[in-house]
Amino acid sequence: MNTASETSALHIDLNSDLGESFGNWTMGNDNAVLDLVSSANIACGFHAGDPKVLLDTVKAAHERDVRIGAHIGYRDLPGFGRRFIDYDAEELLAETIYQLGAIKAAASVVGAEVSYVKPHGALYNRMATDNYQAEAVIGGILAVDPQLKLMALSGTPVVGEARVAGLEVIEETFADRAYTDEGRLVPRKQPGAVHDDVDTVVKQALAIATGQPFASVNGTPVEVSGQSICVHGDSHKALEMVQAIITALKQEGIAIC
Amino acid sequence: MNTASETSALHIDLNSDLGESFGNWTMGNDNAVLDLVSSANIACGFHAGDPKVLLDTVKAAHERDVRIGAHIGYRDLPGFGRRFIDYDAEELLAETIYQLGAIKAAASVVGAEVSYVKPHGALYNRMATDNYQAEAVIGGILAVDPQLKLMALSGTPVVGEARVAGLEVIEETFADRAYTDEGRLVPRKQPGAVHDDVDTVVKQALAIATGQPFASVNGTPVEVSGQSICVHGDSHKALEMVQAIITALKQEGIAIC
Amino acid sequence: MNTASETSALHIDLNSDLGESFGNWTMGNDNAVLDLVSSANIACGFHAGDPKVLLDTVKAAHERDVRIGAHIGYRDLPGFGRRFIDYDAEELLAETIYQLGAIKAAASVVGAEVSYVKPHGALYNRMATDNYQAEAVIGGILAVDPQLKLMALSGTPVVGEARVAGLEVIEETFADRAYTDEGRLVPRKQPGAVHDDVDTVVKQALAIATGQPFASVNGTPVEVSGQSICVHGDSHKALEMVQAIITALKQEGIAIC
Amino acid sequence: MNTASETSALHIDLNSDLGESFGNWTMGNDNAVLDLVSSANIACGFHAGDPKVLLDTVKAAHERDVRIGAHIGYRDLPGFGRRFIDYDAEELLAETIYQLGAIKAAASVVGAEVSYVKPHGALYNRMATDNYQAEAVIGGILAVDPQLKLMALSGTPVVGEARVAGLEVIEETFADRAYTDEGRLVPRKQPGAVHDDVDTVVKQALAIATGQPFASVNGTPVEVSGQSICVHGDSHKALEMVQAIITALKQEGIAIC
Repeated sequence: MNTASETSALHIDLNSDLGESFGNWTMGNDNAVLDLVSSANIACGFHAGDPKVLLDTVKAAHERDVRIGAHIGYRDLPGFGRRFIDYDAEELLAETIYQLGAIKAAASVVGAEVSYVKPHGALYNRMATDNYQAEAVIGGILAVDPQLKLMALSGTPVVGEARVAGLEVIEETFADRAYTDEGRLVPRKQPGAVHDDVDTVVKQALAIATGQPFASVNGTPVEVSGQSICVHGDSHKALEMVQAIITALKQEGIAIC
Repeated sequence: MNTASETSALHIDLNSDLGESFGNWTMGNDNAVLDLVSSANIACGFHAGDPKVLLDTVKAAHERDVRIGAHIGYRDLPGFGRRFIDYDAEELLAETIYQLGAIKAAASVVGAEVSYVKPHGALYNRMATDNYQAEAVIGGILAVDPQLKLMALSGTPVVGEARVAGLEVIEETFADRAYTDEGRLVPRKQPGAVHDDVDTVVKQALAIATGQPFASVNGTPVEVSGQSICVHGDSHKALEMVQAIITALKQEGIAIC
Repeated sequence: MNTASETSALHIDLNSDLGESFGNWTMGNDNAVLDLVSSANIACGFHAGDPKVLLDTVKAAHERDVRIGAHIGYRDLPGFGRRFIDYDAEELLAETIYQLGAIKAAASVVGAEVSYVKPHGALYNRMATDNYQAEAVIGGILAVDPQLKLMALSGTPVVGEARVAGLEVIEETFADRAYTDEGRLVPRKQPGAVHDDVDTVVKQALAIATGQPFASVNGTPVEVSGQSICVHGDSHKALEMVQAIITALKQEGIAIC
Repeated sequence: MNTASETSALHIDLNSDLGESFGNWTMGNDNAVLDLVSSANIACGFHAGDPKVLLDTVKAAHERDVRIGAHIGYRDLPGFGRRFIDYDAEELLAETIYQLGAIKAAASVVGAEVSYVKPHGALYNRMATDNYQAEAVIGGILAVDPQLKLMALSGTPVVGEARVAGLEVIEETFADRAYTDEGRLVPRKQPGAVHDDVDTVVKQALAIATGQPFASVNGTPVEVSGQSICVHGDSHKALEMVQAIITALKQEGIAIC
């Protein structure tokens, strides 16, 4: 049984992908999402975003005291960074440095700071299991600023690898995705991979935030630990889901920060 | 007549465009040029260059104690930044910040610093006479780092504009280009715009470096003042021209720095 | 007074910009618009669109018997082809050929044909008054297929130029834009340039379709002739406007084709 | 021993990658190579080349009666199409159609025709073993023009797959690459993968052209059949190698066509 003071110490971060508009193409509801989350993964122009969108989004995040993360990705606007590209390690290292420099300058111009790095899409997935791409990104972060944290998929090898290399890691979890009995994400293409039901999502968010087990895709209790939950704001329904999670977390006395 | 001590005080900067390779396409003889010049205008990936080329070039420049300049340009790889683009001012400002952030990160990774900004191609030409593009670039530089100098075409309005805005300006001159009687560059498309003759180029370089008049395109004496001379290294002949300029400058006791 | 048979001979084309989505970024309501218009200006991948969007849009237009137009543009995805670029004429000619080849192949794959070419954005505006860009595009069309028509702004010099060169021209008009007393478009930045009011738009569409004068921006009667009216479908309100135009045209016995 | 008439019937195609310049970046010695080869694989602007380079190269090839091949590739200028990209099949199909349309229009403008399609770099390698990428490209070719042949790596599964689908296949071989005992290329990263020695290259070219065995990487006799040999012209030494091959082929009465 938690006392009030213990309860008030509970907290969880909510992160979301932002700044993904490109030129004349708008994506997402950035201002609405920024009013809800505590961390913004802001695209750095390689898989999405552009210099003006980046600057505007960094400013909008800072005005709301939302933490700024560098959402770095493959150089692939046509594929939105979602297709695996078999990079040369030196190029990936250099592109990491380049993107981090760009967002750090944008942040500094509006009086803000970049707190962490979240690789995007196919790079994020590949890093979880691929040593050379993970090494390249970690090397790039360390070269630019070893105080930057790495946001990585909870329970994957890259978490340990980054810590050994000297980076602080934010383990990311998902409230709207099913997990296997081993605490890994069920691949999107498998049935039941994504939760549509608000109750399930809210319960899973609460379980993650409080360190309790929840039902795996097979119904087995599984415990997934992490400091951040990824949420989406690309539709009206998605925003309502985030709102429901926030309401439930607050009712349980869990701070979002 | 100059005494030895006065002579030794004479100095001029030689700058050249570098880091213009892109992916699998090589351009120029960067290492040969870096052995000769005192300032490197390094492409930032928008009109030329890419993150790996940028990082390698910044490193190569730093190893030779060559000053690092951010060669920012229009976002136009197919046109190499040489075609005027009617930018929105806010986009140009944001792209300036983005490119400066990228090269500053690359420089910092190799233990170097960016000293100045030289706009490239059509942006350079436009800024000389166009208030809104000049203002956007100057605004971007001031926002990122007001210690960065601006390299601009000697004798053009942007020089004064940048100084009023608070930037230190490096006035750039050309030894291989003819000047009008008013000290402006003869446009490339006019006859006699480019000097092919080594003697003429060397004499003009010496005149600029010592603050003496030289012959305008009409044969009238004209004086062009500046702290830097632009040189090219894209061909064997171009490199020989630079070597001839350097030999002549040194014979006159003029330091290249 | 028109007899029924004369009335039934009246017809006007409605055209709209389509296929402007890019990769993961969606733009417009293409299927809804395709159900309404008679001509689709389909982006060819240079200012908007991509190969898959192009193929899908060509197919969707053909399925609805909507005429297919090649919406060619500057190679400028970040600027959506809306910024003037000072092209070299040979490059613009080659890019015209390239884009026309791409859309012709896509059309042929779905059993359709490309009927006309409508230059986009800044290229459209520039061609209206700039000889060299107009010549390059006209030259590219003639080289690829002289049966392709050119859609150009009603009353501008390019109309005559294209006809002299041997192209059939579709003169384009606007129902939602104010015209000057001379029958030219009021520039967008001037007050009163765009009509928001449905009645005004519908009346102007009817006037254009029937060859009657309507009120210029100054209230003077002006007559604008053309074979096509440009309509927009990027918002719910825009679609309602198109629906209102269509209802009014049909009530007057004017066919849309 | 061959009689004169039998000898004169012998022939082999020499193909080379051309049109790989991009904007201001020049690559290769296209005119020199076009004077030597019988087939030109011309880049279509996705991994290399641009619309003007494409048009110029198609024209130069046609003027020399060199066969025109569409060198299609991944949409990846920064990686020159050499990095595997995990494409969606529908996108790859659409990009195949798009590139083929573009080069067909360029060829038609200069009065030429496209004869075959050679996928480039990582796409070429992937197609040799990957069903879905091979199917997408084959599907795109069939949709645009089933008379187009496919140039594919001799002895790989895609050869049979394309034939079953109805395409004529040109099996491509290499004179400057070592083969395994099974007639497969030794991967570039393995020792001995590339022949530097002119004699070895010339002997292997003759063996391929005459259907004779030659030494595998292990010294075992291996027979590799094909209708075309790939040659390179990117350096002075490479051009000399091509010249040596041609001289030897002609001495043996083997026509290059």
